[in-house]
Amino acid sequence: MTTPHFTPLVASLPSTVPFVGPETLERRRGRPFSARLGANESGFGPAPSVIAAMREAAGDVWKYGDPENHDLKQAIAAHLGVSARNVSAGPGVDCLLGLVVRQYINPGDAVINSLGGYPTFNYHVAGFGGRLVTVPYRDDRGDLGALLDAVKRENAPLVYLANPDNPMGTWLEADAIQSFIEALPETTLFILDEAYGETAPASAIPPLDVDRPNVLRMRTFSKAYGLAGMRCGYVVGASEQITAFDKIRDHFGISRMTQVAALAALADQIYLRQVVGEIAAARRRIEEIAAANGLRTIPSATNFIAIDCGRDGAFAQRVLEGLIERDIFVRKPAAPVLNRCIRVSVGPRAELDLFEERLPLALAAADQSV
Amino acid sequence: MTTPHFTPLVASLPSTVPFVGPETLERRRGRPFSARLGANESGFGPAPSVIAAMREAAGDVWKYGDPENHDLKQAIAAHLGVSARNVSAGPGVDCLLGLVVRQYINPGDAVINSLGGYPTFNYHVAGFGGRLVTVPYRDDRGDLGALLDAVKRENAPLVYLANPDNPMGTWLEADAIQSFIEALPETTLFILDEAYGETAPASAIPPLDVDRPNVLRMRTFSKAYGLAGMRCGYVVGASEQITAFDKIRDHFGISRMTQVAALAALADQIYLRQVVGEIAAARRRIEEIAAANGLRTIPSATNFIAIDCGRDGAFAQRVLEGLIERDIFVRKPAAPVLNRCIRVSVGPRAELDLFEERLPLALAAADQSV
Repeated sequence: MTTPHFTPLVASLPSTVPFVGPETLERRRGRPFSARLGANESGFGPAPSVIAAMREAAGDVWKYGDPENHDLKQAIAAHLGVSARNVSAGPGVDCLLGLVVRQYINPGDAVINSLGGYPTFNYHVAGFGGRLVTVPYRDDRGDLGALLDAVKRENAPLVYLANPDNPMGTWLEADAIQSFIEALPETTLFILDEAYGETAPASAIPPLDVDRPNVLRMRTFSKAYGLAGMRCGYVVGASEQITAFDKIRDHFGISRMTQVAALAALADQIYLRQVVGEIAAARRRIEEIAAANGLRTIPSATNFIAIDCGRDGAFAQRVLEGLIERDIFVRKPAAPVLNRCIRVSVGPRAELDLFEERLPLALAAADQSV
Repeated sequence: MTTPHFTPLVASLPSTVPFVGPETLERRRGRPFSARLGANESGFGPAPSVIAAMREAAGDVWKYGDPENHDLKQAIAAHLGVSARNVSAGPGVDCLLGLVVRQYINPGDAVINSLGGYPTFNYHVAGFGGRLVTVPYRDDRGDLGALLDAVKRENAPLVYLANPDNPMGTWLEADAIQSFIEALPETTLFILDEAYGETAPASAIPPLDVDRPNVLRMRTFSKAYGLAGMRCGYVVGASEQITAFDKIRDHFGISRMTQVAALAALADQIYLRQVVGEIAAARRRIEEIAAANGLRTIPSATNFIAIDCGRDGAFAQRVLEGLIERDIFVRKPAAPVLNRCIRVSVGPRAELDLFEERLPLALAAADQSV
C-alpha cells in the first residue's frame, strides 16, 4: 500500500527518547526504585506555598491558560530586573531549545556543542537538519577556546553551553563566559543554558545584557524550584530575538496550572534559598559517601555530583547497573572520558542513606564481574 | 550591529497569537469578564475525581513525568479498543497538529483546510512553509467534495477537517467521512480533528481503522473532559505514523500533573456522561435565548453554539463587541459567510443567565450604532 510520505528529513530521523525515564526502567524491572537520584530532580520538592497554590487552582483548569503568559513573564522580568519584552516562556527549556534551533538553523548549518553536552539539544539539532559539531570537554568543563574555534571554523550560526554544566556539574566563571561572548561573531547565537543557575555561585553568572542580540539565556523551574514535572522554562534576551518565539511557539503550551505553580515558586524566594542550602548539604554528603569508598568527585555547582569511578567507562557502567539492580536510580554520562563517572542527583536524607548503603555493594560487584 | 540570522522562513513569519486570550481582553478592559463563554472551555469543570487526583499529586511534581506517557497511552488505547502502538499523546492537539505538519510538509507543499477552519492548524502550516489552500464551507459545514477536489488538484500531502466543526458546531455523518477517506489518494494524510468527539452523536464518528496509514484521528481532554488548562491531546493512527511522533516530539511535553489528570478523567466516564448531558442542556438554553431574540442558531454537536446574527459580519462584530463591553466573553468566526455568527460556548446556569440578560442589550446597541 502506498502511504503518506514523510519529509526527507523526518524520514531520516530515528524514533528515539533522549532520556530513558525511571518509569521505563521500573516497568522493565517490575519494581519501583527506592531512591530516585538520576534525573537531577529536586527531591526536596516544590515549596509548600507552591503545592498549596496548585491545590487551590485544581478546580480552575477547565480554563485555558493565558496564551501570552503575561503575569508569569512580568514576574520573571521583575525578578531579573529586565523588561517583559526580554522574556519568553515555554513548557520547559527542552521545548525552548527546539524553538531556537528552528529559528536559526537551515539544513546543513553547523551547530556547536560539547561532546557529551545536553542530548536533548542535539536531538533538536538533528530534528531540524542541523549538522552537529562537538568539542571535547577539557578538565570536565566546557572548553570555551575550542568552542570558539569550532564556531569560527564551521561558520556556525549556533553554539550551546550549559553553565553550570550537565552532566559534569562543573562551572565556568562569569568573566570567562563574558570573554567568550565578546569574542563570538555577531551572527553566531549563543545559547547559555543556566538551568542550574540558582545553585551556582554568583561568580558563575554573567550580568544580563539584553541589548546583545546574539545571546539567549535559559532558565528553568525544573531544578532548584522543584517543578520538573510541571514544565516551565524561560529565555531571556534581546527583544527582537524574544519576539521571534511568538512566530512559532505553541501559545497554550504552558498549562494554566503550571503558570500558577511557577508564579508561586518565584514568589517564594525564602523557600528557594532554603532548598539551595539543602542541595549544597546533600552535595557534600554525596562527596563524603564517594570519598568513603575511595572515589573522587567532580566539584559541582548543580543539584548533582559526578562521581569518578576511577576506571574506564565500562567499569562505571557496571557500577551504574549495580546501583539500578539495587533499586537506586542514577544515570551516567555516555561520552568518552566523562563516561568514567556516574551522576548522582541530590535528594533527601533517606534516599542518600540508601545510596550510602548500596554504593559499596555496587562497586564490589562491578569489581568482581570483570 | 550585525545580528544572528533567522532562517528565511522564520524571518518571513509574523509574531502572532492565533487566539487573543480572555486574559488579554481583561487586561485591556481593566476588569474581568462576568461570563467566560468564548473559548469553548467546559465551565462545568473537570470531574471532582480529577480535581482530587491533581490535589493529591501536587507534592510529586518535582519528578519529571514519564516521557513515554506509558500509562496514559495504555489507558487511552484500552478505552478505544486499539493497541498503545496506535496512540501518541502530546500537550494539546495544537502541539500535535504542529508535529504532523512538520512530519509531512516540505516548503511549498499544499495543505488543504476549510476557509475559516481551525486557525492554529493554519499557523503551523505557515510555520513550516506549507502553502495553505482553503475551500469554502457549504451550508456551514466542511465541504467534503470540494476538499477532495482541492486535494487532487493541488496534489496535497495533507488535508484537515474538524468533525464536529469548529467554529460552526456542525457535523458530518460518519458515512460521508468514510467515503471521503476512501476517495483520498493514499499519499494524502487526512487529519480528522475530533476535539469535540465526546459531544457528537455516535453517527458522526467513523469506526477507528488503525490499519489505514493516511488517517490520523485527534482527540483532546480540553473540551468535554474540562481540562483545557492542562494541555493533553492524543492522536490515533497506524503504528508507523504514530511511531514517527517519537522522532520529533518534546518527550517531557505532557506534564506529570497532566498525565495524572488525564488518567483520572478517562477513568471517570460517569462524570463525562453527566457533563455531556449538561452540555446538551446548555446548548438548548443558548438556542432558546437566541430564538427569544429572533435569531437563528446553527445546529451543534459541540460545546458551543454559533448564533446567526441575521445580517453581515460587521453587524455580528458589533454584537460581539457589545457583549464584551458588557463583560460577556464570546468569540466569532472571521471568515466570510461564517462571520455573520457569534460563537457562544456552553456554561453553567449563572453565566448563561447573564448572557440572556445582556444579549438583547448588545443587539440593540449594534442595531443603533449603524
